[in-house]
Amino acid sequence: MSFFDRDSEYKVVILMRQDVKMSKGKSAAQACHAAVACALASKKKNPSAFAEWDGCGQKIAVLKVEGERALFEFKAIADQQGITNSIVCDAGRTEVDPGTYTCLGIGPEKQSVIDKITGDLKML
Amino acid sequence: MSFFDRDSEYKVVILMRQDVKMSKGKSAAQACHAAVACALASKKKNPSAFAEWDGCGQKIAVLKVEGERALFEFKAIADQQGITNSIVCDAGRTEVDPGTYTCLGIGPEKQSVIDKITGDLKML
Repeated sequence: MSFFDRDSEYKVVILMRQDVKMSKGKSAAQACHAAVACALASKKKNPSAFAEWDGCGQKIAVLKVEGERALFEFKAIADQQGITNSIVCDAGRTEVDPGTYTCLGIGPEKQSVIDKITGDLKML
Repeated sequence: MSFFDRDSEYKVVILMRQDVKMSKGKSAAQACHAAVACALASKKKNPSAFAEWDGCGQKIAVLKVEGERALFEFKAIADQQGITNSIVCDAGRTEVDPGTYTCLGIGPEKQSVIDKITGDLKML
């Protein structure tokens, strides 16, 4: 037996496009947009998931995703399963073209649920 | 005259320690913690600043800061001026030592106010 129920741990994953050139800071700022959007949306629409995540260290992992098509495929899966998610579209005032989709946040959701969707993606 | 009042634009800056070795993804996740904390704190305690920032594209810039001492010096200035801020302390389960302070989020606040504090720092 274990006092630690892995299934009770929630996390947010952020899928960052690898085919769009961004500085480390730009990429981090895009991840921030996704994380803030997921936090605010879940606080409103899925407060229990938000509370579990917020109360246990707000686990966040940033993962690599190939390109825009994959980004929307993962978004479709999250939508189908009713999991909070938010795609980030950059205004394009600095490093990328206007309207570039840069990353996707998924969660907060149970790690076991998220890992079934994004478990094959590598950490950034 | 200008229709665009620069002083009405709000932003969040995130100061990332450069003396702590972190992967691109780890660094981005730390920035996310700061951004989420600043967003939630301002939504509660400074809703007008939050609304300005949230309603105008949630501008976020990630900046370089030398080390822990500088991080706390900037925090002290933000505290003195009553500006929302949040320092991130990592649990240390992956890349850094437990209890490492990795970054500091400041804002949302007027860009002109924040630039007076962090205007000399370089973008990450």
